[in-house]
Amino acid sequence: MSVKIFLDESEIPRQWYNLAADLPTQPPLAADGSPLTPEKLSPVFPMNLIEQEVSAQRWIDIPEEIIEMLYRFRPSPLKRAVYLEKALGTPAKIFYKDESVSPAGSHKPNSAIPQVWYNRQFGTKTLTTETGAGQWGCALSFACSLMGLTCKVFMVRISFDQKPFRKVMMETWGGKCVASPSNETEAGRRYLAMDPNMPGSLGIAISEAVEAAVSDKSGSTKYTLGSVLNHVMLHQTIIGLEAKKQLAKIGIKKPDVVIASAGGGSNFAGLAFPFIQDKINGADIDIIPVEPTSCPTLTRGLFRYDFGDTAGLTPLLPMHTLGHNFMPAPIHAGGLRYHGMSPLVSETVNKGLVSPVALPQTECYKAALQWARTEGFIVAPESSHAIAAAVREANKAKEEGKEKVIVLNISGHGHMDLAGYSKFLNGELTDYALPQEEIDKAERELDGLPKIKG
Amino acid sequence: MSVKIFLDESEIPRQWYNLAADLPTQPPLAADGSPLTPEKLSPVFPMNLIEQEVSAQRWIDIPEEIIEMLYRFRPSPLKRAVYLEKALGTPAKIFYKDESVSPAGSHKPNSAIPQVWYNRQFGTKTLTTETGAGQWGCALSFACSLMGLTCKVFMVRISFDQKPFRKVMMETWGGKCVASPSNETEAGRRYLAMDPNMPGSLGIAISEAVEAAVSDKSGSTKYTLGSVLNHVMLHQTIIGLEAKKQLAKIGIKKPDVVIASAGGGSNFAGLAFPFIQDKINGADIDIIPVEPTSCPTLTRGLFRYDFGDTAGLTPLLPMHTLGHNFMPAPIHAGGLRYHGMSPLVSETVNKGLVSPVALPQTECYKAALQWARTEGFIVAPESSHAIAAAVREANKAKEEGKEKVIVLNISGHGHMDLAGYSKFLNGELTDYALPQEEIDKAERELDGLPKIKG
Repeated sequence: MSVKIFLDESEIPRQWYNLAADLPTQPPLAADGSPLTPEKLSPVFPMNLIEQEVSAQRWIDIPEEIIEMLYRFRPSPLKRAVYLEKALGTPAKIFYKDESVSPAGSHKPNSAIPQVWYNRQFGTKTLTTETGAGQWGCALSFACSLMGLTCKVFMVRISFDQKPFRKVMMETWGGKCVASPSNETEAGRRYLAMDPNMPGSLGIAISEAVEAAVSDKSGSTKYTLGSVLNHVMLHQTIIGLEAKKQLAKIGIKKPDVVIASAGGGSNFAGLAFPFIQDKINGADIDIIPVEPTSCPTLTRGLFRYDFGDTAGLTPLLPMHTLGHNFMPAPIHAGGLRYHGMSPLVSETVNKGLVSPVALPQTECYKAALQWARTEGFIVAPESSHAIAAAVREANKAKEEGKEKVIVLNISGHGHMDLAGYSKFLNGELTDYALPQEEIDKAERELDGLPKIKG
Repeated sequence: MSVKIFLDESEIPRQWYNLAADLPTQPPLAADGSPLTPEKLSPVFPMNLIEQEVSAQRWIDIPEEIIEMLYRFRPSPLKRAVYLEKALGTPAKIFYKDESVSPAGSHKPNSAIPQVWYNRQFGTKTLTTETGAGQWGCALSFACSLMGLTCKVFMVRISFDQKPFRKVMMETWGGKCVASPSNETEAGRRYLAMDPNMPGSLGIAISEAVEAAVSDKSGSTKYTLGSVLNHVMLHQTIIGLEAKKQLAKIGIKKPDVVIASAGGGSNFAGLAFPFIQDKINGADIDIIPVEPTSCPTLTRGLFRYDFGDTAGLTPLLPMHTLGHNFMPAPIHAGGLRYHGMSPLVSETVNKGLVSPVALPQTECYKAALQWARTEGFIVAPESSHAIAAAVREANKAKEEGKEKVIVLNISGHGHMDLAGYSKFLNGELTDYALPQEEIDKAERELDGLPKIKG
């Protein structure tokens, strides 16, 4: 029965863990290759979040009001997947953090709430952002509704049309959501003039959201991002900090394996960074970011300076990338279809602290189906990647006869993603492996950008 | 911060509360009006559940294995709606049980798990059922997947077509779901011959599910129902039993107001019956079942013997009813579109123990929107009725200047019901009040059936 571990009020984390203190990365550059200063970022982000972005302080206090808002739905439970263990016949103990319990249904509010709070402190009235699959747009709309800010989301048109209910969710929280490219920005109008039926891309949506923020000359509109950046990773560490306390409560000093899916990095960083700190300090833990074979940023991408968006408007970030012109295959895990990766997560790969794997989507859906029929919950396609990797590890533990402790992260529920389940159940899904030409093409493109030193 | 109350393992309820011990109802009759014996029910239900159905024992032990399965996702949290309180400026304290945390997303697994467990004990291999909005079909598919039974769901065709993802959910748990009327039963084929495009009804779907069960002459197929019957109400009392312990933990001896929506009665009974026991024993509590004005079973229906299904195949139940031929308006709270009501819930109305109210759907959606923008969660349209009634009570407490304790039940999330939110946000929803002719028509029809004595 002791398969569900909660924390008391006195035990909840009151500081975020900043991996940058233990693992410095290369500095980002401005789009023209010159050094990036906080001032150059200030038209886009408020200064209090820029300070977090560049901070080298190991522990950062979480303001009390943010704790209160987060702990309306946190701590997320740490549960043991006893039914899955039994089905696999494994001696491994499989634990999972369940981030689907937030109102927006994913881990994204862990950063949306602080980002809105710091913006409100700074005087921001309106926030703009882009969203692909819709999880981040929902989380930001929800957080804005709690704190009375206006929220404007540019949603990639193809997702906007395929998932109309994501827009309804955002509107239910009072957010405004338009399909991108839109008529509301110069960038959007330019793309629409080229092709009125353009399906859009995350890159174009970022361009629109940034333009909408900086073109408000009153300065009361800012831009937000749901992944990749250091301050987003920082906010998400609350997941792993809770998990460590929850494991300690049942006498587990350290897990043997830590697993989470990685798209832009926020979900992986959330669970893994506090355990990476332990690993830096000598703990023996296998830490596994999981990505799709169709978008293998960490396993096959190049570590280079690259733009975060397709149009090349963002700063240049030192990261694993498939090139900012990369168009991922139409797999159903929309949150994992990103060409780049958080610079901090990238650095954990460079330093050999983590061991990324890439998995095909049908193996992931098969694992998600087994999960639903044992643990009960229908997970997001992104989370299915972590489950599939955990199944592999549990089977390995069985072969080795080892009673390993595996901890994974369920980033969200799959209630908005049932079209993918339907296709899998009907045998309509295929796997995509990336041809080497794509990597070669990315290399040629990236050669035109500034190089990483050392 | 003390706004979320959980229970320890040692505090979870280990017995269900049977209101029939404190509030006997009229006996149901066989369809021909003769006395109904357990033997007459045995082709349809297993004898262990029939025993629960007719039991007059006040407390019934929950088998340990059922407790283990329920407590994978229970106890459901009792939370205080502090953000809503603030928005309303009410001195009332509003607490809510959140039943959306189950894998199927509603309170329905509370009875699906015991029903599957008792059937498995009895030797049943396959369970059949009907579903309208899809919540019960999902819950039964989920419970069958945990215990290895085959699940066959007949889903009303119009819902089947409108909500394709409900079928995908059932299939994800291994359930089989067909649109009703179907070609798989004699009843279904008869209706299809009359009209190949028939939208179907809960009544026809019940006929098909019962036929599919009794036509398996091996006896290994049984039928299940997700509401109305005494044993379903019994299983759901775990909600209210938990709520009482959770309130006691923060020093609240009794609430002033208890509110839940009522369709067939299972959600209302779940929260309210344990408090009705207190009321029978002298406690001063307002207990409010909430129904839609378009289907006002408790507030305007007749207390008569009536069939549970349109075709007249079920036993005759003594209940509040709008007549088994009643066709409710197409409101979005599918779970509240039922002509009848649990006999036990009906008897609480007869005895003046509860005070039902009927609310129009636009008031309910308005309240659901306020809930989403304060408490964060997007609730099912059924649950919105409880929220709207709680808002009324909280405003009344404000006028009276009383610090009342209000407890309501959130029966499920609204992730599969966003079409209704969309229509409300676009101003496309209307209210329906039932014309008196409909009640008169029901009265004429019911006059042809056996009368309730006394």
